[in-house]
Amino acid sequence: MTSPLARRVLSGERNAVARAIRLLDDREPAGAEVLRELWSAAAGARVVGVTGPPGAGKSTLVDCLIEAFRARGERVGVAAVDPSSPFTGGAILGDRIRMQRHAADDGVFIRSLATRGHLGGLSASTLDVLAVLAAAGFRTLILETVGVGQDEVEVNRVADSVLLVVAPGAGDAVQTLKAGVMEIAHVFAVNKADQPGADQVARDIEQLLAYREHGPGRADPGAAAGWIPPVVSSVAVEGRGIPELLEALDRHAGWLRSSGEERRRHRERARVAIVEQLRGRLDDALDARLPGRLDEAAARVADGASDPHAEAEALWAELSS
Amino acid sequence: MTSPLARRVLSGERNAVARAIRLLDDREPAGAEVLRELWSAAAGARVVGVTGPPGAGKSTLVDCLIEAFRARGERVGVAAVDPSSPFTGGAILGDRIRMQRHAADDGVFIRSLATRGHLGGLSASTLDVLAVLAAAGFRTLILETVGVGQDEVEVNRVADSVLLVVAPGAGDAVQTLKAGVMEIAHVFAVNKADQPGADQVARDIEQLLAYREHGPGRADPGAAAGWIPPVVSSVAVEGRGIPELLEALDRHAGWLRSSGEERRRHRERARVAIVEQLRGRLDDALDARLPGRLDEAAARVADGASDPHAEAEALWAELSS
Repeated sequence: MTSPLARRVLSGERNAVARAIRLLDDREPAGAEVLRELWSAAAGARVVGVTGPPGAGKSTLVDCLIEAFRARGERVGVAAVDPSSPFTGGAILGDRIRMQRHAADDGVFIRSLATRGHLGGLSASTLDVLAVLAAAGFRTLILETVGVGQDEVEVNRVADSVLLVVAPGAGDAVQTLKAGVMEIAHVFAVNKADQPGADQVARDIEQLLAYREHGPGRADPGAAAGWIPPVVSSVAVEGRGIPELLEALDRHAGWLRSSGEERRRHRERARVAIVEQLRGRLDDALDARLPGRLDEAAARVADGASDPHAEAEALWAELSS
Repeated sequence: MTSPLARRVLSGERNAVARAIRLLDDREPAGAEVLRELWSAAAGARVVGVTGPPGAGKSTLVDCLIEAFRARGERVGVAAVDPSSPFTGGAILGDRIRMQRHAADDGVFIRSLATRGHLGGLSASTLDVLAVLAAAGFRTLILETVGVGQDEVEVNRVADSVLLVVAPGAGDAVQTLKAGVMEIAHVFAVNKADQPGADQVARDIEQLLAYREHGPGRADPGAAAGWIPPVVSSVAVEGRGIPELLEALDRHAGWLRSSGEERRRHRERARVAIVEQLRGRLDDALDARLPGRLDEAAARVADGASDPHAEAEALWAELSS
């Protein structure tokens, strides 16, 4: 027996989608209940992660991808992880503009996700939001993150394919790549390819990739071998390079299936989701069963009267008994 | 009764410090035991966070700060959070060079921290490592992170003062600032101030700061009011601006004490440490008490036969009973 809200989400009603996501964001029990009814319908959707440093032109490029997927008749959901600056009231200007641009298109659903206040990477609800969108029939999902850092490593866990966007002049591109994000990418876009230095950036990436092939280690030792990330030049503001990017992403999707890597990634994604949920339950249990105790423990540790290990041990002993 | 290892750490023996950190990294129970003996000696050390986008010249600037602190006779510990690229075998080239430079100086201890494989932000052991260094007499601690993203928000929780380093040409500086990191900074360094565009970057920051003063929200509503982050121009490769940066950081340290903010931040830091430890215990309990169960649950979720909420609930029910 499906609840009215789940039924409305499954039939693609936008209001219902927004409401389900809000319930999950607010960690209302009703959100988890709805999600439970949606989960099997969500399976099998495609998640493309798009990441890269600020200023690389990610938003414009995502815009082009939305249009390209739409032109093939695909319904597109976008979750933009937004570091929620108080300056912008929690939404980056580009997202607002983009939302307006696609506002009339029923085949596009864009949602900004806050990460503020969340200790540790991607918002716990990212996966939930993607599941709601998938269940509502948005079967091509784009997960966009701003920045370079831990978030990007987690995008790799959540997405099927990761597109890393760099541009000449947007940070030292090669330094960016070295800072641990290069190994998470399945496709590279050298955007703003009409600007000076773009060829050099592309060459640097190719060189680093060649080094990786023969280098000391892989980011994800469990990953299937055999995929060499293509490097595509693009000028997103003019729509140049977009068909090539799409082709590269599709090729990766095909490889994921044929190599068995898709199944492995989906399991890893599920694992992350369960652990995130478990952590939420740990936080809830602390609040509900031991109210105030964490604050007291923190005060003792801050005063040098105790240490985090001892306090955690004591709290854990109570929670797990 | 203090253990031999703790005693050696407390007397500042470098080998013992390295060994204690290794034990903590490997999550050996012996590490937690040693930490317990060191914690009270660690209290009261100063932690300066240094962050900013790749290419801003952070490493060079940190180098200058080390020298400046050393010139005042302070012993300096550095923890560099390193996204552990497989290309470099886990240490960024700059760190290697830096370590060699200070290798002969017994008053400096530099340690790179891996974040790879850790789900969620700063390595759980960052705080532990800082505590070991503090107990060993490195009372001025620098926590350096690479990148722009969630890590930086967490630096704000761990450090007393956060120095945000930007530079003209290193990413779109203003976009970087808007991407959620600006509000975590207590002091701004506009590095590479001899390059074109530096004045504009400084003006942009001042403008954003003025907006923040009168703007819609603060990143950390609990923080004491009254600190207006100074913006300092520097050319780290020439040592220019370093005395001014030091003065700004010292001024912030004085304000922390006089405003009571220091105590609040130390409690928040302890809180984070305890929660991190609790999460570690959750992971350990999953492994030890329910071996294989997380993998089975992940497979069910990946196949669409179940959802993360239901699986987490079942696992949590067993762990907490």
